[in-house]
Amino acid sequence: MPRAAVVGAGMTKFGVHDEPLQELFGAAAFDALDDAGIGPRDLDALYFGNAMSGQAENDTHLGPKCASHIGAARIPVQRFEDACATSANAFKNAVEAVEGGTHDVVLVGGVERCTPETGKDTPEMTRIFASASHRQYEQPTGLTFPGVFALLTKRHMHEHGTTEEQLASVAVKNHANGRLNDRAHFGKETSVEEVLEGPVVADPFRLMDCCPFSDGASAVVVVSDDIADSFEAPVDVTGVGHATDITPIGDKTTPHATQAARDAANQAYEQAGIEAADADFAEVHDCFTGAEIMASEAIGFAPDGEGGTYAEEGRTSLDGDRPINPSGGLKAKGHPIGATGTAQIVELTEQLRGEAGDRQLDADTGVAHNLGGDAATTVVSVMEVRS
Amino acid sequence: MPRAAVVGAGMTKFGVHDEPLQELFGAAAFDALDDAGIGPRDLDALYFGNAMSGQAENDTHLGPKCASHIGAARIPVQRFEDACATSANAFKNAVEAVEGGTHDVVLVGGVERCTPETGKDTPEMTRIFASASHRQYEQPTGLTFPGVFALLTKRHMHEHGTTEEQLASVAVKNHANGRLNDRAHFGKETSVEEVLEGPVVADPFRLMDCCPFSDGASAVVVVSDDIADSFEAPVDVTGVGHATDITPIGDKTTPHATQAARDAANQAYEQAGIEAADADFAEVHDCFTGAEIMASEAIGFAPDGEGGTYAEEGRTSLDGDRPINPSGGLKAKGHPIGATGTAQIVELTEQLRGEAGDRQLDADTGVAHNLGGDAATTVVSVMEVRS
Repeated sequence: MPRAAVVGAGMTKFGVHDEPLQELFGAAAFDALDDAGIGPRDLDALYFGNAMSGQAENDTHLGPKCASHIGAARIPVQRFEDACATSANAFKNAVEAVEGGTHDVVLVGGVERCTPETGKDTPEMTRIFASASHRQYEQPTGLTFPGVFALLTKRHMHEHGTTEEQLASVAVKNHANGRLNDRAHFGKETSVEEVLEGPVVADPFRLMDCCPFSDGASAVVVVSDDIADSFEAPVDVTGVGHATDITPIGDKTTPHATQAARDAANQAYEQAGIEAADADFAEVHDCFTGAEIMASEAIGFAPDGEGGTYAEEGRTSLDGDRPINPSGGLKAKGHPIGATGTAQIVELTEQLRGEAGDRQLDADTGVAHNLGGDAATTVVSVMEVRS
Repeated sequence: MPRAAVVGAGMTKFGVHDEPLQELFGAAAFDALDDAGIGPRDLDALYFGNAMSGQAENDTHLGPKCASHIGAARIPVQRFEDACATSANAFKNAVEAVEGGTHDVVLVGGVERCTPETGKDTPEMTRIFASASHRQYEQPTGLTFPGVFALLTKRHMHEHGTTEEQLASVAVKNHANGRLNDRAHFGKETSVEEVLEGPVVADPFRLMDCCPFSDGASAVVVVSDDIADSFEAPVDVTGVGHATDITPIGDKTTPHATQAARDAANQAYEQAGIEAADADFAEVHDCFTGAEIMASEAIGFAPDGEGGTYAEEGRTSLDGDRPINPSGGLKAKGHPIGATGTAQIVELTEQLRGEAGDRQLDADTGVAHNLGGDAATTVVSVMEVRS
């Protein structure tokens, strides 16, 4: 039996936005409510994600502000923050709430502003992002997130012979996919040559190996399985796994294995009663190209050590046998931190409904992988065409 | 049937602490685990609260760090932030999780540092706290939280004739109670005269009407009802209500009614199958003296308009018929934002077990009221001696 169903999905274009955060969230929320055919008064609760707006623009306790803005004041609202896995965790808790009988109809979503529209420039936002790494053991070394994922990726290259060309092929694929998504931050393609000629950000990552800072919002309507058929286009949520890993990264014995992702994927697949091989496509957390390769292995889309080869050979492309990030991923669609997790759920919903336009896959089962911090939090979700 | 049980409770002294936040949290967490007679490996999950440490000391995504520190890496962890109602919301979600069958044994707690040990002085922390008010309509006016609650209290005084002496009597009572609590930030009593001679912070509040900025941590072990009897001293959780209110406060028609508290209390009492009159005592969110008076009415401990009279006449004192804040409350025990909600649950647990020492009440049923932001979030919990 499904754990829950998604019956509405919406998101803003990811890119640069200057409106108040509750208005930005509202645009995605109204999209999701319209898609579900309901209004704000039909909601039992709002499960809300935002990661950094306290630090970025002195704006916290945003949940009630967003509820008021969309006309849903008085419902219970809570904010989740789990670094880049923020709204996937809100989604997980919402699924549990409708499954456990606490609520029937929940709006789940997230919003974030990360561009200089916050009033903070890129170095300052980089410091703010780095607050999600270990305060005592990582931040004082000057380590920021390009460095964190560079360390993991370097170890992967050392262990498995993964190459810079393979990393570049992830960027090329995701930019090609993003070209087909009109809500993507970037609308241009790139090439392996262009990626490899870019300036080094943190070895082995060059500029085009890194996802952008984006602004945006996303939202989905989650309902209990027993009322799902009263909506027009429900998509089943059959598994949601969630695990953490030891931190700081210096305490991990095999950091490139991203163990939390393996634990979360195993939980999600077991709940769904499937194997990784049964999944048709995945949205994974490609904050850096190397992160996608490690994720593709952790969720079982490629054997350990072959994530790079799979990407280079086109097996994870739209027309490959294991498509990854048809939306363009964080790399091209963009990465408004607190909105990224539910944006993956939006993509799964649209793909499984057959509403994904030029990037439509032939798919019955999709997987979302959303990671936070120094790979210390991962949420993996499985969604399927309603049975 | 109880919704859940608390089987372990712990907290640090509230006051000034300079250790890393995960160590501060760990002190409370180990207390709670020891009290429950379990170890970190027995935990299914950590529901974690922290409000401001991103802004205060660039430390976010703290949940996995705390789990690693206490030896519970790999379990699911999520951080909640709902301003001052942060850890009450973590508690609410944990209760739902054990009730719904998601988990059996959950550690819930919160940690916060608010004193100059953060590296931020009082004006800067005041600005950071104010991030929980409305970014567009409240912050630009210069309104900070003493002003927010002064506005609500002034309206209460206008409508009901509440006096400054009545406000002062709340401070006198809570300081007297705090003297009996060795974990309280303040260990000294005060008098109505001393309160009324203090400098004005925001009319009608003088210095001693305001709770302090504190550092501290608190934690409780929440388990499902069906395993509660395998622990030594379970206390039942019979109701947890949660509501939000419209924001900004200018949009509220009766701001001094604190409608979210009324909604949350009604939910909690209905779940517990009790009336307000059945509750023996309450811990309420007395961030300012006026807030306690409004809370005492919202949760039904005093008729509307009589909260001030009840306080002045000693009816809410330790030896009164409706004791409020036996712990000393935020006013004297202290207010480390993200730790405050579960600290109220710690007090309820100890009172209902008969472990409250010099401040012990004769009580079977306790209520906790934890408020966030400009009264836009409130969580009300009911706990009872195990039936």
